[in-house]
Amino acid sequence: MSLLLTGIAELTTNDPARADGHTDPGDGLLGIVRDAALVVSADGVIEWVGPVAEAPDADDRRDLGGRAVIPGFVDSHTHLVFAGDRSAEFAARMTGTPYDGGGIAVSVAATRAASDDELRALVAARVAEMRAQGTTTVEIKSGYGLTLEDELRSLRIARELTPHTTFLGAHVVPREYASDRAAYVDLVTGPMLAAVAADGATSLAESIDVFCEPHSAHAFDGDEARAVLEAGRAAGLALRVHGNQLGHGPGVRLACELGARSVDHCTFLDDADVEALAAARGTTVATLLPGVEFSTRSPYPDARHLIDAGVDVAIASDCNPGTCYSSSIPFAVALAVREMGMTPAEALHAATAVSARSLGLDRRIAPGQPAQLAVIDAPSHLHLAYRAGVPIVRALDV
Amino acid sequence: MSLLLTGIAELTTNDPARADGHTDPGDGLLGIVRDAALVVSADGVIEWVGPVAEAPDADDRRDLGGRAVIPGFVDSHTHLVFAGDRSAEFAARMTGTPYDGGGIAVSVAATRAASDDELRALVAARVAEMRAQGTTTVEIKSGYGLTLEDELRSLRIARELTPHTTFLGAHVVPREYASDRAAYVDLVTGPMLAAVAADGATSLAESIDVFCEPHSAHAFDGDEARAVLEAGRAAGLALRVHGNQLGHGPGVRLACELGARSVDHCTFLDDADVEALAAARGTTVATLLPGVEFSTRSPYPDARHLIDAGVDVAIASDCNPGTCYSSSIPFAVALAVREMGMTPAEALHAATAVSARSLGLDRRIAPGQPAQLAVIDAPSHLHLAYRAGVPIVRALDV
Repeated sequence: MSLLLTGIAELTTNDPARADGHTDPGDGLLGIVRDAALVVSADGVIEWVGPVAEAPDADDRRDLGGRAVIPGFVDSHTHLVFAGDRSAEFAARMTGTPYDGGGIAVSVAATRAASDDELRALVAARVAEMRAQGTTTVEIKSGYGLTLEDELRSLRIARELTPHTTFLGAHVVPREYASDRAAYVDLVTGPMLAAVAADGATSLAESIDVFCEPHSAHAFDGDEARAVLEAGRAAGLALRVHGNQLGHGPGVRLACELGARSVDHCTFLDDADVEALAAARGTTVATLLPGVEFSTRSPYPDARHLIDAGVDVAIASDCNPGTCYSSSIPFAVALAVREMGMTPAEALHAATAVSARSLGLDRRIAPGQPAQLAVIDAPSHLHLAYRAGVPIVRALDV
Repeated sequence: MSLLLTGIAELTTNDPARADGHTDPGDGLLGIVRDAALVVSADGVIEWVGPVAEAPDADDRRDLGGRAVIPGFVDSHTHLVFAGDRSAEFAARMTGTPYDGGGIAVSVAATRAASDDELRALVAARVAEMRAQGTTTVEIKSGYGLTLEDELRSLRIARELTPHTTFLGAHVVPREYASDRAAYVDLVTGPMLAAVAADGATSLAESIDVFCEPHSAHAFDGDEARAVLEAGRAAGLALRVHGNQLGHGPGVRLACELGARSVDHCTFLDDADVEALAAARGTTVATLLPGVEFSTRSPYPDARHLIDAGVDVAIASDCNPGTCYSSSIPFAVALAVREMGMTPAEALHAATAVSARSLGLDRRIAPGQPAQLAVIDAPSHLHLAYRAGVPIVRALDV
């Protein structure tokens, strides 16, 4: 049965051609239609979008009572496959212990020790929690296994919940390889990668990622990161990079050079990095993760500067047990507005259209698109940041 | 029927004498019992508190599955009685328009124009939204009426939802009195106050409050604030003050001098203010409202300095349409930890025990106390800040 959704005070289509001509900020970017309606087919495809006054009939109808509808959030950077509790590490950090990536080993030990069913239940609960906050598409990375077997297991479990899986064997150098880093890079680029990407059609991962961070003894330098990414590309995977998080480094330029879909964090950039990102527009997205800066009390990246320089800027959660155990994209949007100089419209666009692009997806509300929608208990998208911390948005089941 | 609650991984009692001897931070302040149980009587009174291994029987039982239980949040500073939408003002402020209190007039006009039923539905929805986020006790101020009739109506509606109502006729000088401020102070301290506090037993307000802020042309200076507070005290009301929010002013010292229960905001303090607050410990609480600083991009008050100086520090939301339309105490707790130097335990204590004290309440989990409880979808209170933005806490219906 087709479904007609009415009572939509404001519809963000992410399709500027659909903007209904109001002059509010965001109309150009978000393609806002006021007093809108949507028709969704029985199999969940959008069939019609426009003003409610022009809406066609459908088999069934639902009135959303004057709420705003937006594209479901695309959370393009998460580390959901983990076990264990690191809240005490968080509390210690808040009273002065700096973050250096060393705590990842705690999650690795707990993740290895968890049964498949325990891990599966934890990941599924986190994806459900995200959906309850408006996220309809999620990328999930491995990276708390760090053995061939545990990385494959992490990716298999992630694959049960999303097609957007990322092999992050190169998250940190595990303790057992601390005295022979090259051997671990060989393991990641050799047997692990071969098993992950065994066959294009049945690959366990869509992308490969690396924590490129010369400022952490646990992470990978530029040469190591290049080896990982080039091997991943040769195996047919898309590329993602953790870069320039803790200090200036080679991650951003490497990502741009190699045509990565996304380079994530991007806090410590020089002019050449920003120029490289602007030149890579349309190919490489700069994904900002403000929940991390909140949860590690670190400086925020300068989104305003990046956008003004012509860089594609996405927002994601980085939901992970160490640096940001927040799965809330609305919270990330509020931080983007408060702390990084983005407008509410830019922040919403970054957490839907741009983050989607970094996964090779289109996230417009338009005929022919899947009905991946979220609804806000408020009349406009401005309330996402205006009502910071309040759970007013959820995925819309149609 | 009495109810035995089990499966409580961590119980915050706010009663240090009950701490079970673990050495985690917070045990001293929060009186934490691990693997705890509670018995609640049929009429909602706590009958027994302790380790589950020693729990008595009850008529019914419920297993909370390893979650943390805390005293329900006491939100001791809110402005919930308003109509209208000021999200566009928020968005403008985020791109540079400073806050000066002038927008309050927009809410005044919309509130006056709303019907009783509209206003009642709005306030009830906000209280329900708070309860869904763990707040079980709420103070509600008037202050968007600013006529005798509209202030009384606001307080009557607030009174339907909480006994903790505050008369804030002195929120701003309404436009119609801009050229005769003294006449408005006379109205507040005369006919308005007389009607609000007509009879001790049937008073519409528990407290009186004033926005003492020489840095806003719309608010009240020290002499005007003193007149309001002294009249309120003479009428038998407890005293609350908005003080030292936008710049240094006389609000804090006036509050301490007059024995106010609370002085709220407290961002711009000199040494004498801090000394006065410390000397007023046990009488006057400094209530910090970090959601306001978040939503106005203002400097945060220095909670660490206040606590170290011996000041009683509470946290509340200030939920209001202008400077902070967040009703989330978990969000305020996360900000207190990230931005104001409070430990997770101090922040939780501030949003329960101390904010309760500013309303003349005891908020311990102890036999004989009402079962005003909240439950966290996590094993400890640390997750309130660790999982910033994620809706993991809710009031527990017993």
